[in-house]
Amino acid sequence: MSSRACGRASVADTLSGKALAAEIRADVTERAAKLTAAGTTPSLAIVVATDDDGTLWYVRSIVKAAEKVGVTATIHTVEPPTAEAIGAKLTDLAADDSVHGVILQTPLPEGVSLTDLSHLLPAAKDIDGASPVSAGNLTLGLPAFAPATAQACMELLAHHGVELSGKRAVVLGRSAVVGKPVAQLLLQANATVTIAHSRTADLPAVARTAEVLVVAVGRADFVTDEHVAPGAVVVDVGTNTAADGSLVGDVAAASVEPVAGGLTPVPGGVGPVTTALLLRHAVSAAEGTFDR
Amino acid sequence: MSSRACGRASVADTLSGKALAAEIRADVTERAAKLTAAGTTPSLAIVVATDDDGTLWYVRSIVKAAEKVGVTATIHTVEPPTAEAIGAKLTDLAADDSVHGVILQTPLPEGVSLTDLSHLLPAAKDIDGASPVSAGNLTLGLPAFAPATAQACMELLAHHGVELSGKRAVVLGRSAVVGKPVAQLLLQANATVTIAHSRTADLPAVARTAEVLVVAVGRADFVTDEHVAPGAVVVDVGTNTAADGSLVGDVAAASVEPVAGGLTPVPGGVGPVTTALLLRHAVSAAEGTFDR
Repeated sequence: MSSRACGRASVADTLSGKALAAEIRADVTERAAKLTAAGTTPSLAIVVATDDDGTLWYVRSIVKAAEKVGVTATIHTVEPPTAEAIGAKLTDLAADDSVHGVILQTPLPEGVSLTDLSHLLPAAKDIDGASPVSAGNLTLGLPAFAPATAQACMELLAHHGVELSGKRAVVLGRSAVVGKPVAQLLLQANATVTIAHSRTADLPAVARTAEVLVVAVGRADFVTDEHVAPGAVVVDVGTNTAADGSLVGDVAAASVEPVAGGLTPVPGGVGPVTTALLLRHAVSAAEGTFDR
Repeated sequence: MSSRACGRASVADTLSGKALAAEIRADVTERAAKLTAAGTTPSLAIVVATDDDGTLWYVRSIVKAAEKVGVTATIHTVEPPTAEAIGAKLTDLAADDSVHGVILQTPLPEGVSLTDLSHLLPAAKDIDGASPVSAGNLTLGLPAFAPATAQACMELLAHHGVELSGKRAVVLGRSAVVGKPVAQLLLQANATVTIAHSRTADLPAVARTAEVLVVAVGRADFVTDEHVAPGAVVVDVGTNTAADGSLVGDVAAASVEPVAGGLTPVPGGVGPVTTALLLRHAVSAAEGTFDR
């Protein structure tokens, strides 16, 4: 962590995800090449049921990243995006031996929930850990693909040498895709874990008990210096679009940096690691194993 | 909660489970009678793979309790208790339409784990919420049988009017059967939830942040007044055998009672509610629904 210079405000270490993502991609490239040489190119399918521009940009960025590491990625657009049609597509992909991993991309249309459809994905292909079986296996400590974003938080902390055993971790947010699974992973790493959320009384005080604070609330600039204990490590999972179209996290960096010991940037923190892990999961699935 | 008399030490309210268990049994009796009148007597199977006296006494007590409410309960002893033989028994019971609910009783023989076998139970028959699918559904908020002990903690708190929304709950223990599921249920009830465990630094201080403290550590007299904030409600999940053979909890009641606002007794607290809920789960399974 940063050494603090006398006479000026200390500034949190920037816990970049770029070098880690590059490391993961290098490993994936090597493993994908071996598989391809043996006759099986690892492949992942992304099911999209929205015409939201940001989402389409994001899934195309996964396809490009996949191509670079030797993984085939295909976008399957479901039109019209009814629950039945999405379910039928997932069932097809589940049965298709040439597809190793499947991602059901959110957002889904109104009235269609990831939770209600994800059980159609077999655990072995559920590379973003969305299904009940994946969630249950993760909770019980059995082999499973963890949601990539949650796992990215953990690998980013490990990469930067942040110790977790016996430490107080606070997770802000209790979503099925980030908050809950990252809490399970922190618990497995022997942290003392608190899950706080919109109904939490005095959220800033609860957040300030954290030595490691994971923020996944989905609101730009939500976390400020009043939420951060001096020296705490802050992981910003947020991916919000600012008024000018730029990507911003859930943490007001300018406010938090003078207080925190470390902070993951947005962009360039959790995001690139998440994408790299999705690709690694696809390769692991093609190898017939889980990633962890 | 208790009104505090001047001039003498206040004493925690005793949060008995007996009246609640009786209420649940009355409901179960009525529903079981309706099912039986319609031609289907609800039935549960308990798979036992140990000759431990305490366990055999416990499963026989479930059978007796089941008989009283009109539920058929059968003990299936697996001999020799290998993983293969237990798995084969679970597979048989999963396929047997006359069996509505199945419990795989712990402890299991060395080298055999509940987690590795429980996936053989279909969620619809997994009335003690042991399987990965049940755990995942619980985490994702989908219909599922919760582990009966975890649910008993929640129903006991509700029965005694303990408000949870926005409150700070601390769970001591992170087992798959109690600590983790009760944390999920507390979170669903909008509590701010901390899970603490053997690796937690300064456990007493963490426990003292609780307005509701759930103790599931499996060690007699583990929790004392140093773990309890004044007025906190304490739920004692422990079922330890004392030197004289009596049942004792994880909480040193004499130490905690002057401090706590409420305390569940052992015996007579979580235990009877757990047994009653197992029977209710069996009836719900026979009705073709989940309990929650």
